[in-house]
Amino acid sequence: MVKKDILTPRTLKGFRDSLPADASRRKAIIDQIWHGSISAGFRPIDTPALEYLETLVGTGNQETDKEIYRFTDHGDREVGLRFDLTVPFARFVAQNQANLQLPFKKFQFGNVWRGEKPQKGRYREFCQADIDIIGVDSMLADVEVLSTVRNNLRRVMQRPFTICIGNRVVLSALIRKAFDGIDSAGEGKALVALDKLAKIGRQPVIDLLSEIPAANPEASAKLLDALTTKDAQGHTDLGALAAFLADDACEELDRLQKTLVCLKDLEDNGPGAFQLDLTIARGLGYYTGIVYETFLDELPGFGSVSSGGRYNDLVSRFSKQSLPGIGGSVGVDRLLAALQELDGGDPSPRQGLFIAIAGDKAIALALSICQELRAKLATTVDLSMKSGKLGPQFKFADRASYAAVLTIGDDEMARRRQNWAAPAYKVKRGTLYKYIKSVKSASEGCVTDE
Amino acid sequence: MVKKDILTPRTLKGFRDSLPADASRRKAIIDQIWHGSISAGFRPIDTPALEYLETLVGTGNQETDKEIYRFTDHGDREVGLRFDLTVPFARFVAQNQANLQLPFKKFQFGNVWRGEKPQKGRYREFCQADIDIIGVDSMLADVEVLSTVRNNLRRVMQRPFTICIGNRVVLSALIRKAFDGIDSAGEGKALVALDKLAKIGRQPVIDLLSEIPAANPEASAKLLDALTTKDAQGHTDLGALAAFLADDACEELDRLQKTLVCLKDLEDNGPGAFQLDLTIARGLGYYTGIVYETFLDELPGFGSVSSGGRYNDLVSRFSKQSLPGIGGSVGVDRLLAALQELDGGDPSPRQGLFIAIAGDKAIALALSICQELRAKLATTVDLSMKSGKLGPQFKFADRASYAAVLTIGDDEMARRRQNWAAPAYKVKRGTLYKYIKSVKSASEGCVTDE
Repeated sequence: MVKKDILTPRTLKGFRDSLPADASRRKAIIDQIWHGSISAGFRPIDTPALEYLETLVGTGNQETDKEIYRFTDHGDREVGLRFDLTVPFARFVAQNQANLQLPFKKFQFGNVWRGEKPQKGRYREFCQADIDIIGVDSMLADVEVLSTVRNNLRRVMQRPFTICIGNRVVLSALIRKAFDGIDSAGEGKALVALDKLAKIGRQPVIDLLSEIPAANPEASAKLLDALTTKDAQGHTDLGALAAFLADDACEELDRLQKTLVCLKDLEDNGPGAFQLDLTIARGLGYYTGIVYETFLDELPGFGSVSSGGRYNDLVSRFSKQSLPGIGGSVGVDRLLAALQELDGGDPSPRQGLFIAIAGDKAIALALSICQELRAKLATTVDLSMKSGKLGPQFKFADRASYAAVLTIGDDEMARRRQNWAAPAYKVKRGTLYKYIKSVKSASEGCVTDE
Repeated sequence: MVKKDILTPRTLKGFRDSLPADASRRKAIIDQIWHGSISAGFRPIDTPALEYLETLVGTGNQETDKEIYRFTDHGDREVGLRFDLTVPFARFVAQNQANLQLPFKKFQFGNVWRGEKPQKGRYREFCQADIDIIGVDSMLADVEVLSTVRNNLRRVMQRPFTICIGNRVVLSALIRKAFDGIDSAGEGKALVALDKLAKIGRQPVIDLLSEIPAANPEASAKLLDALTTKDAQGHTDLGALAAFLADDACEELDRLQKTLVCLKDLEDNGPGAFQLDLTIARGLGYYTGIVYETFLDELPGFGSVSSGGRYNDLVSRFSKQSLPGIGGSVGVDRLLAALQELDGGDPSPRQGLFIAIAGDKAIALALSICQELRAKLATTVDLSMKSGKLGPQFKFADRASYAAVLTIGDDEMARRRQNWAAPAYKVKRGTLYKYIKSVKSASEGCVTDE
């Protein structure tokens, strides 16, 4: 422990500390999503932060593969920090199948790590809260995940948001239909290009699409028309789509349509609307059906705060049995950043009680009253860590935003000594509570027990 | 994503998944400690899982240094996963001092990683929940941490436990007094040997002590006598100690004695006793004063479920300012394992409601009733992920331990269609709640809305 040089205290690039305001709010978000998910029959699990590298690589995309924090551990194993909660969950299901009743609805929250370029509001370590349903490929499961995500986000905030829903199968079919003879590499490029539509606009997307060998500007424009033509109600025109689409994706389109009808039925006056948006492609490679992203109506440029989709092949990496799945992930730290941007730096209201101690002789009584109040009051009861001069203690309580200060001093002790364990003590407590309720601000001064 | 070979699904050695029963209980423990700590004026923070390696090494002991998961990241930085929450907290305090009001009382929970040999109930990734008070070296802070740890453990369980309290300064002084001319390496060995007393017994400790160059069996026996002689009340005899002790540690002994008096004053009929045990040394090198470990009375051999102590020099690695600190850490996963051992595998009682869907035509109504019940009922409301045959749905609900099944079928739909949005619908809901309340077990069959 003997160190001559003083180290510079620093966090790694892309990592950060959270001060109490942020840490409290993060926990509140997690708790709301936890309770909402439990209420809907999802069951909590945990998986390790570290996995065998082979479990993680080749599942997301080339970018996420590169971004995995990977190393060789003490036992010469190639390991990696998880980059999401979905890929380890697929491993979890295959490994714990004997103990799971399928279909299994899971909830999990935890940190994930990606060595990506840090940007405003994006960090290399961030918290996700995921729900998934594994072991069934039904429209009901799609609706259940999406409606639970909507309900969970509602529990967190009363701000308007839109869940934009697309479908990988339909989108791929449309791409293949638009660009005759396109190969899978080209299809991947087209997905990436279309995914950027909201961000970069129509013409740049047409330019990107037209770089694909099988594509041309005319076909690209036609594809974009099909994806974005709206009917009189402002909804994507599924009739136009069905005409454009080859038979092979019609079943998926039909299911998507029914899913949307169910979800629209569940809309009410509360925040959270569902909307078809076939340009939603999602970056991760493991999606095989419905996909979604969620945007805050008040922060259109902020990016998605919750996303996910159906992944019917992910568990088959570990199991001969086919176990289709669908998941929805809330980016807890993204949501936290968004709410901070919307709410600004509102100071939290004064709350809680601070106990000041007039002198060393009052310590024992202060400790005892403090213990009693903590057991009885719902609010925070803090205790001065130094006894003696009251000025600095009041100043501390004021700056720490406590609503009231209770001073324990000599008179108090004298009475307590006389009436130790006597009924008068109880009456005294009653008076004390009244004072605590009546004093609004620590800066108003101390509350004595008179 | 195309993979020919099926991977074996496996967790790394020393790591594990948590199924819902464990994950629920872990969260409940964290929540109780969170609420207890907030109630006592501790404020939550978060720090990254990954730190610069230099932040972590040379702070715990040689073992923890070796056990750190360390690697070189994408930016060629030497990094490590935190092995506890205390060392990163010292870095946090130095880095964020401008935004903290000192003394600062913090609460933090999170996972830590140690590449140690896995043992029963000990894993390489585990969750800790820490409280710390930084920026003050007072008896009040010592009492505050220890009494809050006691209160937090009480919130988690109503089982008897004992917080055993020692002091590094006093113990070191006793060791130096006992073994004339002992060097710091010898002192370290003596600390390690004495720390094992509860585990291995008196004579083996004397043997270990006697291996130290400055020691001999007679002096070792005399030291052990001083440490373990109890008075008539079964308490360590501090009078005998003071006589044995050189002046240099008398101030610390006096403070320890006063701390114990305060803590004993706070004892009541609830679980959690405080006890002096000067053989408590704690493995980590950064402690400089009071140290403690916590044992469950019913599981004496299980080991400590909460430990900590005063570390007055840890922040000075990063700051010229002296910022003394004290912390108490609850081993959340240790506590979870202990409670599992004590409670056994009690099956959880049937609870919650499962909605079965008689056919595809009932899906929309089932979704709507499900959404309504989830908003109104405090219990879990799960929804079948497949509509149609009821037998498999009842079986699922039974095996999933739901207390009641609500079937949505054709009659229901017919009536709903007739009375869409009519008052009769509300009355119907009232009847429905009565049924939900009256049906005790899913295996009793389905509840229909008649």
